[in-house]
Amino acid sequence: MVTKWLDPVEQRAWRAMVAVLTRLPGALDTELQRESEMTHFEYWVLTLLSEQPDHRLQMNELAHKANASLSRLSHVVSKLERMGWAQRSATAGRRGVHAVLTDDGYLRLTAATPHYLAAVRQLIFDGLDTGQKARLAELSELLATHLTDALDPSGGLTTAGKNYQYPPGPSEA
Amino acid sequence: MVTKWLDPVEQRAWRAMVAVLTRLPGALDTELQRESEMTHFEYWVLTLLSEQPDHRLQMNELAHKANASLSRLSHVVSKLERMGWAQRSATAGRRGVHAVLTDDGYLRLTAATPHYLAAVRQLIFDGLDTGQKARLAELSELLATHLTDALDPSGGLTTAGKNYQYPPGPSEA
Repeated sequence: MVTKWLDPVEQRAWRAMVAVLTRLPGALDTELQRESEMTHFEYWVLTLLSEQPDHRLQMNELAHKANASLSRLSHVVSKLERMGWAQRSATAGRRGVHAVLTDDGYLRLTAATPHYLAAVRQLIFDGLDTGQKARLAELSELLATHLTDALDPSGGLTTAGKNYQYPPGPSEA
Repeated sequence: MVTKWLDPVEQRAWRAMVAVLTRLPGALDTELQRESEMTHFEYWVLTLLSEQPDHRLQMNELAHKANASLSRLSHVVSKLERMGWAQRSATAGRRGVHAVLTDDGYLRLTAATPHYLAAVRQLIFDGLDTGQKARLAELSELLATHLTDALDPSGGLTTAGKNYQYPPGPSEA
């Protein structure tokens, strides 16, 4: 394998990204666990359920929306069930097992949200001006889309990803 | 303080950032563990040691460079010692306990690096053009610097419990 090293700009980007990746998830977990007894991923799963009109999602679909494998999601939904914040439900006329947000789960989510938003502002957005926020949105969406292409559902690199050639985009600035 | 919701641009940015934060660390760990029997954080610690002329760093300084608490770092260095890739050393004339990269650790790092760089390219940089990489470097450095200001050494918010208070109740549609 011929090693292609990162160029200086890529090195700057990657070193700073690693610093963010190393600290941000733990900081979010710390804040949410202290205030609300839930991890960031659990908060996110509750949020996704709350965004549905009937507060329920098929497990497969919920795993997809949460960017998680079904086994990781299943583990987390089991904890949410123990806390009384969600239930599994197999309903006649609906395909597959669903996760359903309970009334208590909805209350816990609602109570956690002000702390969560304050933490997200303090950790991220308070450090950015309007233009930087717009560029962050654009770049993060690019990175997320690219990750979806590069990863298979289990979270490993796809074979296609290993030979991935990114075409020059039409709207490169 | 009234709950300040994220505006539409912040919501776009944050939703995409969460998608990246949720998948990227696991994908890097998966690749490195399959190819090289180490996590991404372990790879990073070995890299930081290898960048020193004498392949050693005081544990406190290494924790700082690795964006980790001393207890997290200590746990990881213990695993690196069990693998034979690093040693702890208290040397006369040097302050504090140092972590030292072993020859075997250096070989393992060197062998892992082509796989690591290929994964980083496929997961991140292959999806970006030159201008996007430059903007990613700028923004990531801003985010990393802001995180350093917002977090205390233990990884908690410096302003936790001071900057916001429980609102009377979020209004819900």
